[in-house]
Amino acid sequence: MNEKVRSYFKCSKRERAVFEAGIKLGGIFHQYVGLPVNSRNVDEIEKGIEAAVSIQPFVKAVRVEINRDCLRGGDFTLDYSSLGPKMLNVTLEIRYEDILVIGRLRYIEELEYPLMYVEDVIEETTGE
Amino acid sequence: MNEKVRSYFKCSKRERAVFEAGIKLGGIFHQYVGLPVNSRNVDEIEKGIEAAVSIQPFVKAVRVEINRDCLRGGDFTLDYSSLGPKMLNVTLEIRYEDILVIGRLRYIEELEYPLMYVEDVIEETTGE
Amino acid sequence: MNEKVRSYFKCSKRERAVFEAGIKLGGIFHQYVGLPVNSRNVDEIEKGIEAAVSIQPFVKAVRVEINRDCLRGGDFTLDYSSLGPKMLNVTLEIRYEDILVIGRLRYIEELEYPLMYVEDVIEETTGE
Amino acid sequence: MNEKVRSYFKCSKRERAVFEAGIKLGGIFHQYVGLPVNSRNVDEIEKGIEAAVSIQPFVKAVRVEINRDCLRGGDFTLDYSSLGPKMLNVTLEIRYEDILVIGRLRYIEELEYPLMYVEDVIEETTGE
Repeated sequence: MNEKVRSYFKCSKRERAVFEAGIKLGGIFHQYVGLPVNSRNVDEIEKGIEAAVSIQPFVKAVRVEINRDCLRGGDFTLDYSSLGPKMLNVTLEIRYEDILVIGRLRYIEELEYPLMYVEDVIEETTGE
Repeated sequence: MNEKVRSYFKCSKRERAVFEAGIKLGGIFHQYVGLPVNSRNVDEIEKGIEAAVSIQPFVKAVRVEINRDCLRGGDFTLDYSSLGPKMLNVTLEIRYEDILVIGRLRYIEELEYPLMYVEDVIEETTGE
Repeated sequence: MNEKVRSYFKCSKRERAVFEAGIKLGGIFHQYVGLPVNSRNVDEIEKGIEAAVSIQPFVKAVRVEINRDCLRGGDFTLDYSSLGPKMLNVTLEIRYEDILVIGRLRYIEELEYPLMYVEDVIEETTGE
Repeated sequence: MNEKVRSYFKCSKRERAVFEAGIKLGGIFHQYVGLPVNSRNVDEIEKGIEAAVSIQPFVKAVRVEINRDCLRGGDFTLDYSSLGPKMLNVTLEIRYEDILVIGRLRYIEELEYPLMYVEDVIEETTGE
């Protein structure tokens, strides 16, 4: 089956690995932005997003951190926010064959932009 | 503050309570449909959605059940689904002043439709 | 068929109409927040959202305005925003039987909150 | 500014181009799945999605086709669907420096899966 899937791709395994990282990061942003979050549920929201992402193809690990500085958290009825572009800090490891990609999504102050980027691509030599 | 919010509404407290139920159910559908889910992460996904909804205004309780019959769950790379309209079964309690609303979202076979409906509106007499 | 749908609801027709308004407004927020928008595509985004909402049950009319003051629009690669809670101004008319509901979603400065509210409920006497 | 952005990436320009394609395709799936669609608004929904995607970084062209065979379209109140994984057929061109990537998202029957894949990576030689 993996063979069949592979036949659709016209690119190298490094490019495939990086593409898979892009899919997940783009998906995280567009699926979860808008979620209701405050200081009372933020731990569970992080875990929920990690649980969702972790079953996607080739995800070896994912860590989602929501910036606590942006959160409201009193007891007033409207005291919560919707998850916004500045709040997400994601580190993603994609493993495709022997390629490991570290992908990131985080708000970069100097760019005023929630950047998704490739932090590293590592070819894992499996030794002798 | 609640006073200020109330001033925007031109409806009865029963109507307000029912309106708040509609907001949450419409939001649940459109926020979470598309989430990656399979038998390995379904418990966490349910909890994550409940955690998000439970901090929204006037939510007294929420229960999210995802239909296990629809789930894939083997070890193959693509063995998951995206959360779809037929999979969600939500029971929501909204409390606004002394009004309790039970709202539902679930797929109704005879309608072939994921219906959001008002299961009950209860005026809680606080007696003396 | 409408008869069948109605049998699930335990509420008055006014409450039903207001519930339907809540569903749409909650759905709009959670479906479209996150959309890429800038001054070049904002007209089309507004029309696209209106087209989607207008086919939902009991929607008689919908107007979506995205606040131009929040938009970027130069030619730089990153010069766009994702649609955020402060940018949406929606006016929705729901018609259920002889009840007309005017629902609103807009950011209210004094509340620092994107409020969804019931602006009016009108019983249309068909008289003679 | 593009220089600054580039400094975050530890990968080749081909990999960067493919990564950008992944971001957009993952984002399209997770942003738009759930949208209300039927035969009456499908043209506008396609245009709306194209308008949103086209302003994202490095998008040279995008074509969104929604499978008409899946659509309802009568006059009954509930006669619409929410945009689902089987309905989307997207062709995306990403241009990063002199690299052109053709990315695809479409439901593949033999895989029973809405596959995002790299259809081609073309290095555009600019002459002699």
